[in-house]
Amino acid sequence: MAGNIFGRNLTLTTFGESHGKAIGGILDGLPAGLGIDFDFINGELARRRPGQSKLVSSRNEPDQVEFLSGLKDGISLGTPIAFMVRNKDFRPEDYKSIENTYRPSHADYTWDAKYGIRDASGGGRSSARETLSRVVGGAIAKLFLNKVGITMTAFVNRIGSIYLQEEYSCYDLNSTENSEVRCPDNKTSEKMISLITETGEKGDTLGGEITCIIKNLPPGLGEPVFNKLNADLGHAILGINAVKGFDIGSGFKSSEMYGSELNDEFYFADGRIRTKTNNSGGIQGGISNGEDIYFRAAFKPVASIMLDQETVDKSGQKSIINPKGRHDVCVVPRAVPIVEAMAALVLADHLIQNSSSKLENFL
Amino acid sequence: MAGNIFGRNLTLTTFGESHGKAIGGILDGLPAGLGIDFDFINGELARRRPGQSKLVSSRNEPDQVEFLSGLKDGISLGTPIAFMVRNKDFRPEDYKSIENTYRPSHADYTWDAKYGIRDASGGGRSSARETLSRVVGGAIAKLFLNKVGITMTAFVNRIGSIYLQEEYSCYDLNSTENSEVRCPDNKTSEKMISLITETGEKGDTLGGEITCIIKNLPPGLGEPVFNKLNADLGHAILGINAVKGFDIGSGFKSSEMYGSELNDEFYFADGRIRTKTNNSGGIQGGISNGEDIYFRAAFKPVASIMLDQETVDKSGQKSIINPKGRHDVCVVPRAVPIVEAMAALVLADHLIQNSSSKLENFL
Amino acid sequence: MAGNIFGRNLTLTTFGESHGKAIGGILDGLPAGLGIDFDFINGELARRRPGQSKLVSSRNEPDQVEFLSGLKDGISLGTPIAFMVRNKDFRPEDYKSIENTYRPSHADYTWDAKYGIRDASGGGRSSARETLSRVVGGAIAKLFLNKVGITMTAFVNRIGSIYLQEEYSCYDLNSTENSEVRCPDNKTSEKMISLITETGEKGDTLGGEITCIIKNLPPGLGEPVFNKLNADLGHAILGINAVKGFDIGSGFKSSEMYGSELNDEFYFADGRIRTKTNNSGGIQGGISNGEDIYFRAAFKPVASIMLDQETVDKSGQKSIINPKGRHDVCVVPRAVPIVEAMAALVLADHLIQNSSSKLENFL
Amino acid sequence: MAGNIFGRNLTLTTFGESHGKAIGGILDGLPAGLGIDFDFINGELARRRPGQSKLVSSRNEPDQVEFLSGLKDGISLGTPIAFMVRNKDFRPEDYKSIENTYRPSHADYTWDAKYGIRDASGGGRSSARETLSRVVGGAIAKLFLNKVGITMTAFVNRIGSIYLQEEYSCYDLNSTENSEVRCPDNKTSEKMISLITETGEKGDTLGGEITCIIKNLPPGLGEPVFNKLNADLGHAILGINAVKGFDIGSGFKSSEMYGSELNDEFYFADGRIRTKTNNSGGIQGGISNGEDIYFRAAFKPVASIMLDQETVDKSGQKSIINPKGRHDVCVVPRAVPIVEAMAALVLADHLIQNSSSKLENFL
Repeated sequence: MAGNIFGRNLTLTTFGESHGKAIGGILDGLPAGLGIDFDFINGELARRRPGQSKLVSSRNEPDQVEFLSGLKDGISLGTPIAFMVRNKDFRPEDYKSIENTYRPSHADYTWDAKYGIRDASGGGRSSARETLSRVVGGAIAKLFLNKVGITMTAFVNRIGSIYLQEEYSCYDLNSTENSEVRCPDNKTSEKMISLITETGEKGDTLGGEITCIIKNLPPGLGEPVFNKLNADLGHAILGINAVKGFDIGSGFKSSEMYGSELNDEFYFADGRIRTKTNNSGGIQGGISNGEDIYFRAAFKPVASIMLDQETVDKSGQKSIINPKGRHDVCVVPRAVPIVEAMAALVLADHLIQNSSSKLENFL
Repeated sequence: MAGNIFGRNLTLTTFGESHGKAIGGILDGLPAGLGIDFDFINGELARRRPGQSKLVSSRNEPDQVEFLSGLKDGISLGTPIAFMVRNKDFRPEDYKSIENTYRPSHADYTWDAKYGIRDASGGGRSSARETLSRVVGGAIAKLFLNKVGITMTAFVNRIGSIYLQEEYSCYDLNSTENSEVRCPDNKTSEKMISLITETGEKGDTLGGEITCIIKNLPPGLGEPVFNKLNADLGHAILGINAVKGFDIGSGFKSSEMYGSELNDEFYFADGRIRTKTNNSGGIQGGISNGEDIYFRAAFKPVASIMLDQETVDKSGQKSIINPKGRHDVCVVPRAVPIVEAMAALVLADHLIQNSSSKLENFL
Repeated sequence: MAGNIFGRNLTLTTFGESHGKAIGGILDGLPAGLGIDFDFINGELARRRPGQSKLVSSRNEPDQVEFLSGLKDGISLGTPIAFMVRNKDFRPEDYKSIENTYRPSHADYTWDAKYGIRDASGGGRSSARETLSRVVGGAIAKLFLNKVGITMTAFVNRIGSIYLQEEYSCYDLNSTENSEVRCPDNKTSEKMISLITETGEKGDTLGGEITCIIKNLPPGLGEPVFNKLNADLGHAILGINAVKGFDIGSGFKSSEMYGSELNDEFYFADGRIRTKTNNSGGIQGGISNGEDIYFRAAFKPVASIMLDQETVDKSGQKSIINPKGRHDVCVVPRAVPIVEAMAALVLADHLIQNSSSKLENFL
Repeated sequence: MAGNIFGRNLTLTTFGESHGKAIGGILDGLPAGLGIDFDFINGELARRRPGQSKLVSSRNEPDQVEFLSGLKDGISLGTPIAFMVRNKDFRPEDYKSIENTYRPSHADYTWDAKYGIRDASGGGRSSARETLSRVVGGAIAKLFLNKVGITMTAFVNRIGSIYLQEEYSCYDLNSTENSEVRCPDNKTSEKMISLITETGEKGDTLGGEITCIIKNLPPGLGEPVFNKLNADLGHAILGINAVKGFDIGSGFKSSEMYGSELNDEFYFADGRIRTKTNNSGGIQGGISNGEDIYFRAAFKPVASIMLDQETVDKSGQKSIINPKGRHDVCVVPRAVPIVEAMAALVLADHLIQNSSSKLENFL
């Protein structure tokens, strides 16, 4: 199976090259009877859109999503929901220079190695534009999750050397969207903006980190052994362009700690079993325990820098590259809704999966 | 689909509770005609085995693997290779005390929440003993990969506060197995051993990190979009018990770097396209580029500490727990072959997948 | 996994309700480098189209397929090929009467039972219009198969009581498409046409049978045990609307024969192993043997008859139904390209699967 | 994915060669909390066992199934249930003669073509002994189905030229197991036995047909489009050795009938919607409607006849074969529990799948 189908129970199959006719997808396996809030979906797309501020690329993408099937009067039918967005803002001439030249740390060379053919224009299918389909699918998954009370929110906790010093619980996550860089702390946000501006002036680029928090997940989601909830979240997030790292709960820091520091003691309150601390990040043995899930994704800097770089062309001849296309200095703020979308798809998939874990569900 | 089948083209389906009759698995999709080196498989199992040194738990597991099918005179038939290991060393009385009490940061509570029933003895299927099946499957995948020249090796780069300071290329990885803690640096190795001994005397436990290096992978492996090679590796590694983080190439550090620092410039040498640096970790756009793949896995400390901890029982009543079973202070050295095994399964799966990427492969 | 993804290696994911905005699909897993002959695809669609003759329904469907992705200058990129056809000829008023009334032997009641909601207009997703996506996907699969020499052709061997008396080898299958009912024998063809005309005048409908022949398949395709080539062909064909039976090779007749009559003796000729007879239908033990594959599909008559029928509405109240929409007397001739398409998808899937059956393919 | 995993939600992965160490399987995805009746499973195995009567082969297979995992005190844990049966009755010398010679209408040649290697002894994995694992998995699926009231029963309706003349409702299906040939009609049963005896004396073999009836299935099971309930049943049954045809409801006869004869009118009775007739065989639009499902499977005669047959060896040299092993004249009666088992696996899979069809199931 090629890699364009995501999920096992709720599947998102996506298509589209950056400068092809359209991009889109098919969401299959959504239960029938869900009301689809199109404004919400459009809002999610707007969050992902380039050109939201002066900090990001100015490509004018209206990203008007058209739903082609699976709905009747805005209610899900239980049949596949297909959607697409027409690509409008082609400037293929921008990419002519790189058709035969491999941009450093881009996917140009590896796609040629794999397929022997490549749609260079706009990065083809390796373009970040592909994530638009994920945001649409993820938005619908969110609507489903919201029906059972599950919510999720992500924010930027680092850009380059600037990062949030405290745990997520110290910030008002409702303020995230007020920040141009989607960082819930005002001062950090301003420093990040300054860093992005300076870096852009040098023609360079920046990476960063995103933290995502999932609340109100019932205990019991996640398939032990290979498809642990953390493993499936990792798979989803590491499949986003430019993500180089993923950790969950106390994550990489766990490896430096003692068991006695890290263990989450149980207690009973408000009619349910809780943990006093949450180093586990809401997942134990691959299964949700009802506490907040929180995880972190590390994004490398955008590969397209406005500086001379050495490379080779298809024939192996040395070449100097200095891209002239439209490029972001830092895409991490725009990746926030993408991270949420992928997490939503994973959780919805596991919510469906878990409905058959016990015989009593069938009686 | 429940979570006990791993892979898409080469599938490993595993079974078994820690103190049940047996554990094992079925490897399906292996090409016919591969010679199976049983000594190699047993060697891999020996690397994983408890009781290898005074540092780890003393459970006496002969772990004699029996192959039940799929082979003729030691050659793979193309049919499923089933294998199993009988469980012999039961001490169910060790676990009676915890049958109704939830051990902090173990999977006891979440399994009960999910299934409403649990085999408490020895941790049941959530026991690390389950990884034995992964090592057998992974060993066979290694034999397949070796046939096309692909090799992999992992080592411990951190235990608690002690870690390797240099890049992997600075160490002689052939010396890893000489170290009781599977760390390729003698001095660091000794410090790690001291730390483990001290920590064990306090009844506490330690986590750590493992680095894995894959060499000689041809360019072109990995399915772009959702099943990127890095995403599938992350899924595989995050599905190992106690893993809380995964990063690849320059990983989490990427988020602090500038694009100009991170980008890997291309050059041509020895008839093929190479990169001068390898911050990408051998994968670009989700597809291998022929350079070394290297990734890191973060393991939390063993949850079973020999200290009093507060918890609750099934009914929510407060309880104090102080486990008396056999437990390791630090399992990270034993996890080295498990990390390699999971990586091998992913690579073999993608090697098979990639055989159909181009029309010319069919002509 | 819901039922809108077909195949394991080459996957066709389809979407669309009959009177929704569009229907279409995504073909994923096609090797890169295949030239796509759009005229051929349009030709296949034309073969399926209603209104080809006076014998079938007069709905005017231009069925203009638009390709949205996965191609560059008509060559497959190895990325998903998405396509769609806009629905244009809505007459929702035709279906108002049946929104709350269950048409006998239609899918109205069962869809309501399953989903609690249904797009009644035009039959929604249960409409035969859904097969349009199969024909597009199948046409591309045919182009792939043709590259390795595999061809397939289907024809009508029965309509109601009129049927072909001889084996397929007795007819010139190239003449099939000259027949309005896709029967390769002129006289039988004429009788079928008469029967259809008579039956239509009575307001009644007819079923029939289709035979499909696959030639030049190499030996070795098919996965023994559960995914035998015959089992996968059966799954594909039985998933077409109105198909109630499938048999292969000597099929149902086999059950009446002696082993000594049925067995296909081997001989050697032209450098390869052949069978003298072909009762096996080109498949032994679930794997192709290089001889012709031939199978038969039985179609029930169209459920929409122009006669009064008793039924009930959603509330269980008795009702009389006499549909007024556009309906075929017999859809079997139009189903010929659909049968071929589904067979092509199965064979292409197995061709890809089989490329990893032997170690030598990797060396 | 190779062909040894059956199902999507409830998966049965099987292994084993006829004369290897063992055969068995892993059933994954069964809900936790199901009581396993081992006597029932052994009873199902006994129904399948060779040597039940003088009519079938005398191989002495105790078929003692051992459960290795997934159960605690006889209750399913929600984890994989692994099981195996040791192979004991090897007579490899019986098969030496055929190691290099291709038996007509067996899988010898095609397996060699596919894999380049074959375990000739006892037919290896292509042996009917493989179905033992299906019967164990299917027996557990039956236990699950029975909990929600679904039952199934199959019987032999034809052996060679002898067949039942009436619909299934005319026979007392409870008497099936009293018949040595599993035919519920005494007189027909006797004729079948005579025919088998005569045919065996001539060294020849016989095929036949099995009918399977499923009762009390709730409406709503089956995934429209590709995974229709009938398509999945067909896939399951056509994957049984020697099956050459499958039809459902009025099946192949439908193609000869008029729509007005075939349509099943709806009525309301006992609080639910019913059909007056049941030509649909309990499935409309691929989804169950609550009426009886009934289908038919056609088995070809056993390929191993005790008569001289021409064939070739691996090198293409002509050879005469006359097998001396233990062979049945007619395996159809023994296939009855296998047909039921495969149907049970399909229904259990769809029962699980259907639990997520509507949003209301999650609220």
